[in-house]
Amino acid sequence: MITSPDNAQLKLIRKLQRKKAREETGLFAAEGEDLVEAAAAAGWEAEVLLRAGEDVEPELLDRVSALGSGSRVVGIYRQRWAEARGELSVYLHGVGDPGNVGAVIRSAHALCDGPVILGPGCADPFSPKAVRAGMGSIFARPPARAGFDELLGTKIALDARAETKLGGGPLAAEAPLVLCVGAEREGLGPELASKADLALAIPLRDGGPESLNAAMAATVGLYELANRMATDA
Amino acid sequence: MITSPDNAQLKLIRKLQRKKAREETGLFAAEGEDLVEAAAAAGWEAEVLLRAGEDVEPELLDRVSALGSGSRVVGIYRQRWAEARGELSVYLHGVGDPGNVGAVIRSAHALCDGPVILGPGCADPFSPKAVRAGMGSIFARPPARAGFDELLGTKIALDARAETKLGGGPLAAEAPLVLCVGAEREGLGPELASKADLALAIPLRDGGPESLNAAMAATVGLYELANRMATDA
Repeated sequence: MITSPDNAQLKLIRKLQRKKAREETGLFAAEGEDLVEAAAAAGWEAEVLLRAGEDVEPELLDRVSALGSGSRVVGIYRQRWAEARGELSVYLHGVGDPGNVGAVIRSAHALCDGPVILGPGCADPFSPKAVRAGMGSIFARPPARAGFDELLGTKIALDARAETKLGGGPLAAEAPLVLCVGAEREGLGPELASKADLALAIPLRDGGPESLNAAMAATVGLYELANRMATDA
Repeated sequence: MITSPDNAQLKLIRKLQRKKAREETGLFAAEGEDLVEAAAAAGWEAEVLLRAGEDVEPELLDRVSALGSGSRVVGIYRQRWAEARGELSVYLHGVGDPGNVGAVIRSAHALCDGPVILGPGCADPFSPKAVRAGMGSIFARPPARAGFDELLGTKIALDARAETKLGGGPLAAEAPLVLCVGAEREGLGPELASKADLALAIPLRDGGPESLNAAMAATVGLYELANRMATDA
C-alpha cells in the first residue's frame, strides 16, 4: 500500500497531465472504473494500476487526479496509434479542443470502421480530457496520425460554403471514404477544401450559427455517410 | 473605473457562478466579446457591462472570471425562457452536463425552428459552461421548460433499443415534431420511451459504444428530422 505522496508511480500519474511528459514517456493515464474496464475489455494491459484503498491511500490518489472527481482507480497505459485504414474514417484538421477530439473518437467507434485520423493542430487524444470524452473508445479504436495529403481514398470535405448539401441525394463517391472536418471557425480552409474530391455542407437554417461545433459536424457527417453507404450499396 | 475588488458589480459576477444566485436574481453572466456581441445582435440589453481597462481594472475582471481565460468583457443579463413552440424542437430529459445542454442549444439554433425544451434533471442553461458551449445561441434562441407530458405535437424518442432506425425511410409523423433525448446512460427510460408516438434508434455498429454522447445524438436526430421534413414535404 502506497502511503507517501513522493511515491514514483503517483508522481508519474501527475506528470502525465502534461503533454510533454506524455510525449517523452509514450504513456498516458486513464481515470475511473469505466475507462479501466474498457481498457481491459480491449485487451490493453496497464503499465501501472492503482486502486484506492488496495494499492494506495485514497487521499493520495485523489491528489493526483486530473479530473478532480475522486477517482477510485487510475491506470497508466502505453499510447498506441492505428493505421489510417477503413471503408469510412474521419480526418480532423486543427481541432484543438480535447473534448471534441475525444467525442469524435467515441462517435467514430459507434458509426464507422476506420479510426479518427488526426492532422496538424489537433489536441492530444491521450490528454485526460480527451480520454474522458472518448468514454473508453480510445482503447477499442486508437487514433491515427496523417497530413491531409497523405489521406487515401475519396476525400469528402465538410465545408459550410459548399453548394452541395449533405444528405441531398445519393453519394457519387467510391469507398474508402474519408470525411474531412476542420477547426471550429476556420473550417478546413479554402486550400484544403479545394483539394478534396467532394465538398458538402450540412444544411443549416438562415439566421442561425454559421457552423456546428466541430465534433457535432463530424458526427453528423459520419452518420450520414454511413447511412448512405448502407443504402446505396 | 472600478479599482476595488469589493465592488458590488464584480461581486455579483462572481456570485452568478453559483446556481442558487442565478435562481435568486434571475440573472446570468456572459464572458467574452463573442457572447456580448451575440447578445447585442439579438437585441438583449445588459444589466451590467464591464470592459477591462475601460470600466474596470483588467486584473479585477480576471479574478471574477468563471472560465479563467482572461475575458476582456463580461455582461450580466436577465434570464429569458421561451415558449415550447415550433415545427421541430428538441426535448432533453436528465441531461446533466452543462456543456451538452449548451451544445444542443447551438445545434437547435442551426437546425430547427423551435427551442431546446429542458425537462427534469437537466443542467442549468444559464451556467457559465452552458452559455459558453452555446456560443451565443442562448440569446437568439432561449430555451423552454416543460415536462415530458406537457409536450405538444408528435413525440419522437431517440432510443437505442428501438427497432426502427433513424434515417431508414420516410417519416410517418406529422409536424410539429418534438425530438426527445434522454441522459447519457439511461436514455429516456422505458416508461417515457413507451409514451412517445415513435421511437427511433440511431444506427450504430456492433461492438461499438451502446450510445452516442447525448448532445451528439440530439444533433444527429435534429439533422435527420430537419432533412426529412424538407424532403418529404
